[in-house]
Amino acid sequence: MNEEEPVVIHGLVCPRPLTHDDTIVLGHGSGGRMTQELIARTFYPPLENPLLLRGDDAAIFETPPSGRMAFCTDAHIVSPLFFPGGDIGRLSICGTVNDLAVMGARPLWLTASFILEEGLPIFVLEEALKSMRTAAEEAGVKVVAGDTKVAERGKADGIFISTAGVGMIPDGREVGGRLARPGDVVLVSGPLGDHGMAVLAARGELSFEAEIRSDIAPLSGLIEAMFEASDGIHVLRDPTRGGVATTLTEIARQSHMGIVLEEAVIPVREPVAAACEMLGFDPLYVANEGKLIAIVTPEAEADVLAAMRAHPLGRESVRIGQVTEENPGRVLMKTGIGGMRVVEALSGEMLPRIC
Amino acid sequence: MNEEEPVVIHGLVCPRPLTHDDTIVLGHGSGGRMTQELIARTFYPPLENPLLLRGDDAAIFETPPSGRMAFCTDAHIVSPLFFPGGDIGRLSICGTVNDLAVMGARPLWLTASFILEEGLPIFVLEEALKSMRTAAEEAGVKVVAGDTKVAERGKADGIFISTAGVGMIPDGREVGGRLARPGDVVLVSGPLGDHGMAVLAARGELSFEAEIRSDIAPLSGLIEAMFEASDGIHVLRDPTRGGVATTLTEIARQSHMGIVLEEAVIPVREPVAAACEMLGFDPLYVANEGKLIAIVTPEAEADVLAAMRAHPLGRESVRIGQVTEENPGRVLMKTGIGGMRVVEALSGEMLPRIC
Repeated sequence: MNEEEPVVIHGLVCPRPLTHDDTIVLGHGSGGRMTQELIARTFYPPLENPLLLRGDDAAIFETPPSGRMAFCTDAHIVSPLFFPGGDIGRLSICGTVNDLAVMGARPLWLTASFILEEGLPIFVLEEALKSMRTAAEEAGVKVVAGDTKVAERGKADGIFISTAGVGMIPDGREVGGRLARPGDVVLVSGPLGDHGMAVLAARGELSFEAEIRSDIAPLSGLIEAMFEASDGIHVLRDPTRGGVATTLTEIARQSHMGIVLEEAVIPVREPVAAACEMLGFDPLYVANEGKLIAIVTPEAEADVLAAMRAHPLGRESVRIGQVTEENPGRVLMKTGIGGMRVVEALSGEMLPRIC
Repeated sequence: MNEEEPVVIHGLVCPRPLTHDDTIVLGHGSGGRMTQELIARTFYPPLENPLLLRGDDAAIFETPPSGRMAFCTDAHIVSPLFFPGGDIGRLSICGTVNDLAVMGARPLWLTASFILEEGLPIFVLEEALKSMRTAAEEAGVKVVAGDTKVAERGKADGIFISTAGVGMIPDGREVGGRLARPGDVVLVSGPLGDHGMAVLAARGELSFEAEIRSDIAPLSGLIEAMFEASDGIHVLRDPTRGGVATTLTEIARQSHMGIVLEEAVIPVREPVAAACEMLGFDPLYVANEGKLIAIVTPEAEADVLAAMRAHPLGRESVRIGQVTEENPGRVLMKTGIGGMRVVEALSGEMLPRIC
């Protein structure tokens, strides 16, 4: 092997030749001394907070004062683990934070359970944990409890992380797919498809060099700003797997409304559009991890759009469509040449292992 | 192949020759139509409840009235998936229920995230989900939100399930490893090592036929009965990975107390003892999934033991030791012939993939 050639493991450049002591072994999942040492040396320093450090079987917190809470979970199995703009650690925090935030909840506490593959270089885990800390700080959440298991080599794939989260819903907030109303407008917080195409490019599945970075980000701050600006928000969603097309067909089905999109205004960055065209993908079906769809009253449109554009994660927000009484349960697209076509939910698999 | 010979997959007898339609494919993890169909046909019927059926990004529930809540998570990767006395579905509910219950919490809501391997026969998933329902009913909890991802063949192992749970802690309850006091007595709710040895036997790693069933059970009902009987409970723990030895060394460390065990009274079923002796295992280090350790005041001992023995999951409860001021941070064993030996935490791996 060429000495100059860096060794890349799970998308990260390996800092040095690895020894047995630098890798995860089955004993790290024993629940005994080796597990305790891994937790103390590798997990605690980046994720440190008083609740986590109690080291009990569960974290205990004060019940928030509001009357309603939200609770959700996500499993993360992205491959490769590291890619431009993000990694499995950042994804595991943002995925759960965003699921809470689009329900109108303020994310508070997260748990994280790890399934590690025997032989995983520990520096890869350390980098993922650093990303979790950064993302948790951005989102204002804390990881308060966790678990680690180790599967034999070839029975997992590096790192899988499942996170769960709880958040408090401030009084008066009520959003949901069923609440879309005729005349409501459909907003999106920026260009589509960055995450899915960034992961694909990182796998070397594009035949050309593309400068595509994932958009992974915690949307809770943007969403708080939107609620402060207006009480006309009916639906919030993060269009992840299946993309905007699948998300909007779900909303159309839940609300028994039609949704009409304007093809000409749907934002897609140039390198994403080029990569999609070459591979025969439609950016409407490609996953996003830092974008949201908002369906708001026509009266609220200006205030909500202004609040979105004033936030770093919503600068490129635009209106892409409208809710209609006609065509209940269906999403239609007004094409550039004046035609109309039906937008279906994603049917099979397009890009496996993107989140 | 002999036509009479049943095909066993992940510990279950396969009911019929499987076709492509009977197995998990990557499209089931797409987030699109196939994912929706899998959720509607396979996940919803066994786990059905109003919160789950909303199908939103997160479940919303009323904040419980008590001032404190507990929140925890566990990843489950047991192999084989089905074994005498339990399976990954039952384990995934009981593991999280028990982590909440030993913190003094009444378990309320759970989330479940699934990582499925491409090619998994769907009947295996269906059986695991039925077990989850049964265990959730026994424990009085509901699975209110979930997520499903699919990894390529050879990048996972059948089914991994991560569960997270929240529970409410009734006012006045305060338990924890740091609260053990000199003179307190150490109780265990029944014979040790059933779970670990049942999984090992199911892997065919014993050279003889052993009638060992896992003890997997939700301990929340037993624990409620104990709190009703007495307010002298200082510590509760479920001795899972690493067994009673590892659990007690943790408590000794957290409380800066010594613990002295009486070897002669430690309960172990005959087939478990025989299997351990043959393989050179110590039952004190073998995992349990339906047993608890309680450390209680000497005044509370009689009431707590009576309450435990009156409960179906605690009939064989006994006192196995005492907390001492001497030997802080250490666990000692009084042997049958009158000697004393130090009990250490589990150091390396003994039985991988048991939970």
